[in-house]
Amino acid sequence: MGYGVVQQTAQQLRTAQYGVIHLHRYKTHALKLQKIFERVLALVDDFKPDEVALEAPFFGKNVQSMLKLGRAQGVAMAAALAREVPITEYAPRKVKQAVTGHGHASKEQVAHMLMNLLKLPQMPDLLDASDALAVAVCHAYQGHTQRTQPTSWKQFLQQNPERVRGT
Amino acid sequence: MGYGVVQQTAQQLRTAQYGVIHLHRYKTHALKLQKIFERVLALVDDFKPDEVALEAPFFGKNVQSMLKLGRAQGVAMAAALAREVPITEYAPRKVKQAVTGHGHASKEQVAHMLMNLLKLPQMPDLLDASDALAVAVCHAYQGHTQRTQPTSWKQFLQQNPERVRGT
Repeated sequence: MGYGVVQQTAQQLRTAQYGVIHLHRYKTHALKLQKIFERVLALVDDFKPDEVALEAPFFGKNVQSMLKLGRAQGVAMAAALAREVPITEYAPRKVKQAVTGHGHASKEQVAHMLMNLLKLPQMPDLLDASDALAVAVCHAYQGHTQRTQPTSWKQFLQQNPERVRGT
Repeated sequence: MGYGVVQQTAQQLRTAQYGVIHLHRYKTHALKLQKIFERVLALVDDFKPDEVALEAPFFGKNVQSMLKLGRAQGVAMAAALAREVPITEYAPRKVKQAVTGHGHASKEQVAHMLMNLLKLPQMPDLLDASDALAVAVCHAYQGHTQRTQPTSWKQFLQQNPERVRGT
């Protein structure tokens, strides 16, 4: 399970941290869920993010694996909910589209594009970590798009003075 | 989503509370998950249970519904994990078996048996609530079995003094 934390300013998008929660160490399913909850809660408490985003596949191999995935997502989401941080979900295709420009990019293409976008000194070792960073970047772009979209005529006129006749 | 809280003493099993978290009121999936987390956390904080048990179906209609179910279970489990309460899972068949004596009992049969076992003044209105109480009862029975099983020779000898020669 990968995670990525980015900081967005007016000028740039900066990587605060990224990594992977290694779950193969923990034998039982319950222990794995506990570790996900603890680690995500620690990340939320350390970085105090304004928003959390996650990748939400809407199909899977079988019902058994989807139940496990759902639980893993559920405990991670609960860590955000416990601190009242809003959660947004993105389909994998949407994340790839936002980062690379096409929805069927490979994990390696996503990682390579992130290196450029976030000026990382090297490719993340683990593709789960770069995948998570990609979700964060996708959400940052989304938020940016939303924030620049005028919500009223007044705002539109302020943002587009050249479109007002007579000014 | 139903819940049931029981208190187990040496003599009896007593119902502390049971009910249903009505989720249809909340429009978004995220809000439903938040309510499950908040309500289960409140139950854990109010009743301070030693143990939590949940029913875990291992099959379902489709992958989409299993992901949703997994998430709902995940946030509920996280509420227990947040307070370090151990979680045990039971297959629906196991729960029915423990309460009624046969694994294919109907929800109504389970509810009826619970009325007798827990001396409830009336049948729970909602079958989700009686289902949850059934899981609690199943776990209480299970725990009782486990606790009486000796874990060491010393314990075994203490519990079975008649089996020690020469005493």
